[in-house]
Amino acid sequence: MDNKKATPVSNLGEFGLIHHLTDQIQLKNASTLKGIGDDAAVLDYKNKQQVVTTDLLVEGIHFNLMYVPLKHLGYKAVVVNLSDVYAMNATPKQITVSIAISNKFSVEAIDDLYDGIKLACEKYSVDLIGGDTTSSVTGLVISVTAIGEVEDGKAVYRNSAKVNDLICVSGDLGGAYMGLQLLERENEVYKVNPNEQPQLEGYDYILERQLKPEARPDIIKALQKLEITPTSMIDLSDGLSSDLMHICTQSKVGCMIYEEKIPLDYQTKRFADELSINPLVAALNGGEDYELLFTIPITDHDKIKNDPDITVIGHICEAEKGLNLVTGLGSMIELQAQGWNHLKKEEE
Amino acid sequence: MDNKKATPVSNLGEFGLIHHLTDQIQLKNASTLKGIGDDAAVLDYKNKQQVVTTDLLVEGIHFNLMYVPLKHLGYKAVVVNLSDVYAMNATPKQITVSIAISNKFSVEAIDDLYDGIKLACEKYSVDLIGGDTTSSVTGLVISVTAIGEVEDGKAVYRNSAKVNDLICVSGDLGGAYMGLQLLERENEVYKVNPNEQPQLEGYDYILERQLKPEARPDIIKALQKLEITPTSMIDLSDGLSSDLMHICTQSKVGCMIYEEKIPLDYQTKRFADELSINPLVAALNGGEDYELLFTIPITDHDKIKNDPDITVIGHICEAEKGLNLVTGLGSMIELQAQGWNHLKKEEE
Repeated sequence: MDNKKATPVSNLGEFGLIHHLTDQIQLKNASTLKGIGDDAAVLDYKNKQQVVTTDLLVEGIHFNLMYVPLKHLGYKAVVVNLSDVYAMNATPKQITVSIAISNKFSVEAIDDLYDGIKLACEKYSVDLIGGDTTSSVTGLVISVTAIGEVEDGKAVYRNSAKVNDLICVSGDLGGAYMGLQLLERENEVYKVNPNEQPQLEGYDYILERQLKPEARPDIIKALQKLEITPTSMIDLSDGLSSDLMHICTQSKVGCMIYEEKIPLDYQTKRFADELSINPLVAALNGGEDYELLFTIPITDHDKIKNDPDITVIGHICEAEKGLNLVTGLGSMIELQAQGWNHLKKEEE
Repeated sequence: MDNKKATPVSNLGEFGLIHHLTDQIQLKNASTLKGIGDDAAVLDYKNKQQVVTTDLLVEGIHFNLMYVPLKHLGYKAVVVNLSDVYAMNATPKQITVSIAISNKFSVEAIDDLYDGIKLACEKYSVDLIGGDTTSSVTGLVISVTAIGEVEDGKAVYRNSAKVNDLICVSGDLGGAYMGLQLLERENEVYKVNPNEQPQLEGYDYILERQLKPEARPDIIKALQKLEITPTSMIDLSDGLSSDLMHICTQSKVGCMIYEEKIPLDYQTKRFADELSINPLVAALNGGEDYELLFTIPITDHDKIKNDPDITVIGHICEAEKGLNLVTGLGSMIELQAQGWNHLKKEEE
């Protein structure tokens, strides 16, 4: 960052900054009639239904600017919301982005953040239609709202899993959590000796899982192509335990998942091994993988069994049986909701 | 607050807190198919268009909890967004609310905030359909997104004022700013002597303008009844100067407004007098009045001239003539955009 210009935001003022950040934005979606520049954006979804989701990211809680580049942060802030839209079986079309910045942020730093935001909009064909730009007393705050479309009656909820349904996940789990452990370890080393080079070689995959996660529109499309409508779906933001518990609680069912079926990447396993932790803990409680967790009727098993991106990890059972993980040794343990309980962590 | 219980948020945890805040919510609008409880809310606007607007409020920048009760803050956070929806000639139907809270906030304090949010939802018939609850390192952050409906092609923008149109405002201006001055004065007194009673008598109107502003759906309805479609509209959040400048710049026109026509309440004038400031400055640069500023064809003048809630303050002219205020003494001065330039203030 040292070679970069650092223009104070006060040189532009609030209106100037908004203009600077948004004047190049081109709208791509037919449903966006009016984007930034009025009291509100105007949308026309015609005969489609809409889904709406929102997230608030706070510096020092959700991200640490010591090791998260602003461009990656902007990208991730958008992607985590789009992931929620896909988890409804919907397609994101618009986002609003509000930021609060302290005066430690230069125009160039905010440009980096918006470069990431705009890159995500580009990649996922989403229009940035509004937001708010203000100052904060201390750190950076980012609030994103995403809006998407879904055909009438095609939204997939959390509360409709049925007994005997298969439980599936896309991709692999636990990588984002292990990436975070790696970044935190290197940050500690850096604090002791700023001249030491970070040891990140061979871990590019888990770093990317943490710093630049992707949502899974490809899975939504694949399921449509296979003519599978999931009976329930959620995205994996809090970790497999918590997110599966949301589905089971809301659907009033139990579940049985198998340790040996849970997909783990080689790097996730290797770095967990290096830290002497069980990689399964990263998958169950780590969160931030932004993969899709969904249930399908058992009759659809043949359709997905050869898809390398989808893994069946267990099945839904009666509520009385509880939420269970069958370990590699055949013993059964109860799943515990964990999630990112920041509110509790603060007190600890 | 001293007699109140102060339950730590950690007693509930994040999921528990969300449940506590939202389990009583009942959906009122037909367009809300699914509210809180899934990855996203699901809406169905049928053949109507949607408007979307969002605001981010930060403690220490937009509000001071030394003199703003949390219930009022929650109410106002919602109303300022609804005001933006009405300013599009639309009707608000849903909001999402995200909050970041530090551990100085008890469950009871958050309940107060949500009581205000829910009261505003009740009063304006809006559904609370989602949000995010997280912790912050320091102060309180509130992010609200409002969604509303408007008939096809009936949205009123800022960029369509025409030469010779009349410039109108609802209600009276400058009250919210004078209310803020009063609260800040009493807060200074309190800091010096906490036992001194605040001197607020006779100023209830300007206090309410600051602490509990209302949006103006009644004006939207009145205009519909009078069969007037404004040629342009904006809500007065930044102050008459800035907001009128937005209309003129985007419409590529100029304007002429008259000092003596600008509606000021008696309390606004009296307290401005007490502080030896010109109340006109409060109207022009104060902001936060959340009245509607709009332009109408001159041929509609007869329809509104007897409406006590609408005042004609001037007219639109050619862009070359600039943006002008004609003073009581007949001299002409140029309007300056001011607004709440927090970003600049920080540096001063």
